[in-house]
Amino acid sequence: MILTVTLNTALDLTYRVPRLDVHGSHQVREVVQRPGGKGLNVARVLAALGHRTVVTGFAGGLTGSELRELLARERNIEDELVTTAGSTRRTVGVVDESGGGSTQFNEPGPHISPEEWSAFQEVYARLLENGGSSGSGDGGAPEAVALCGSLPPGVPVGAYAQLTKEAHAAGVPVVLDTSGEPLRRGLAARPDLVKPNAEELAGITGTAEPLHAARAAQRRGARSVAASLGPEGMLLVTPDGMWQAGPPRSLTGNPTGAGDSAVAGLLAGLVEGVPWPEMLARAVALSAATVRAPTAGEFDEGLHADLLSQVTVEESSEPAPG
Amino acid sequence: MILTVTLNTALDLTYRVPRLDVHGSHQVREVVQRPGGKGLNVARVLAALGHRTVVTGFAGGLTGSELRELLARERNIEDELVTTAGSTRRTVGVVDESGGGSTQFNEPGPHISPEEWSAFQEVYARLLENGGSSGSGDGGAPEAVALCGSLPPGVPVGAYAQLTKEAHAAGVPVVLDTSGEPLRRGLAARPDLVKPNAEELAGITGTAEPLHAARAAQRRGARSVAASLGPEGMLLVTPDGMWQAGPPRSLTGNPTGAGDSAVAGLLAGLVEGVPWPEMLARAVALSAATVRAPTAGEFDEGLHADLLSQVTVEESSEPAPG
Repeated sequence: MILTVTLNTALDLTYRVPRLDVHGSHQVREVVQRPGGKGLNVARVLAALGHRTVVTGFAGGLTGSELRELLARERNIEDELVTTAGSTRRTVGVVDESGGGSTQFNEPGPHISPEEWSAFQEVYARLLENGGSSGSGDGGAPEAVALCGSLPPGVPVGAYAQLTKEAHAAGVPVVLDTSGEPLRRGLAARPDLVKPNAEELAGITGTAEPLHAARAAQRRGARSVAASLGPEGMLLVTPDGMWQAGPPRSLTGNPTGAGDSAVAGLLAGLVEGVPWPEMLARAVALSAATVRAPTAGEFDEGLHADLLSQVTVEESSEPAPG
Repeated sequence: MILTVTLNTALDLTYRVPRLDVHGSHQVREVVQRPGGKGLNVARVLAALGHRTVVTGFAGGLTGSELRELLARERNIEDELVTTAGSTRRTVGVVDESGGGSTQFNEPGPHISPEEWSAFQEVYARLLENGGSSGSGDGGAPEAVALCGSLPPGVPVGAYAQLTKEAHAAGVPVVLDTSGEPLRRGLAARPDLVKPNAEELAGITGTAEPLHAARAAQRRGARSVAASLGPEGMLLVTPDGMWQAGPPRSLTGNPTGAGDSAVAGLLAGLVEGVPWPEMLARAVALSAATVRAPTAGEFDEGLHADLLSQVTVEESSEPAPG
């Protein structure tokens, strides 16, 4: 079982409009709604890859109920979300059918009270110990934990550092996918893998060159760093070596959720114990197959299988010239 | 009591963003959610003017529940909505704080089943007879009915004609605010007042000149026509004469809901039996005060009082040169 944590879950709405006109009025052609927030997207991809996944974090209000109803329809995902008084935020992604591209609006998350944060910590401790309450799994500790996304107001900024330490105390490896101060603080707790994009990495290390920045993140505590480079693929820096991989061809589409699919690929590789280069290839193929899928956060399974055999992984021995 | 009918209700979300960037990602600063759909907006303004209002139409799903929770907090509005299996649509209005102006996204409405349409007709007939079930009113027929907005899929296109006839059979005057084919069909049932904007009027009469178009709408069945002319105000064509009125000065702001406030002003004037020119002045002042309010569908009460004394109503005796 893999555990994903999403403290700032969202009800994700995707609107398709024939053409986006600023200050215009649009009749939305089609509405797709999904349980969202990075950790829930990661769980959906893991579930599609055949991994049983437990999700925790917060959900509340009627948007939270809607999110949980949708989540209950997903196979292989177990809901261990903690109920909050505040309402789960929505995100709205407007897909412009005339020119491609998506315009995104993210509501602010609800305020989490100290009591709700305590309730979450209890659930998290229990899941680290026995892997969920439903009895559908083996009852053991998770094979890995993914800590994903932004922190809603009220959650301490050092939350991910604390959750990382607790997972390690339970012998569970941690993948951390966040940005800004929560990432900076989280690094100090020595997560096994962090997956920032180049911009997030530059934000905490002060250097825009990905390899230098990844090295800097390692010095700050990350054991390994998978830096996503957008359409150019991904750089993986580990204690055992460095690799870079890109999709075999440039793929256009909707990049929403591509980073979450990459995290799912890395997690699946981690728990299956595959070598680093194969883990990287999986992450890049899944990410590219997500860009091409019509709905944000889904991936094109046929394309994924194709791409997996085509991704070229190159080993690097020296830092690229800065 | 005034009855407003909203067959295609909506949960209206207003998002404020610092600046709208096409294909960008926006952290929404503030989210305001309100019960929406034209008839619910009209009811809110009527309630603020001191008129007890009953609302009917459809609401369903979790968005419908959210709408009804919000509606329950409004004073002077009684909820007689009929529950549907399908979910009430949302609308999202994105207000660009850098340059003013709003970009609107409207989800499609849920499909209404024949059974749900029958259930609505029973509620409507009961409300025409006794004015509501809660016992908070006088139990008599409504003083007026407003039929507002678009028809969701599954509702017959001649719905407003039928509802107009039933109201008239119960001795209740009808204000109709819709567009396209539902308006065209509705006109034939001889509503007491219709409130199209210039574009909607042109759409059904084939003439873009407002006075000619209003006359054409009268020939098709409307007793009186209040044609909204955007920032220039409103033209009122009645069996007793014609008047035009505009705000005393040009007002910029958010025009969302301005038309609904005008309908509320017309309805209030109608049931209070005020002369036509005063009714028109009220509609124009309310509409302008709504444009200036920070939240769509609310009006600035102080400004409304000011404007009411400043609106100039001019009587017309001849068609303006086309």
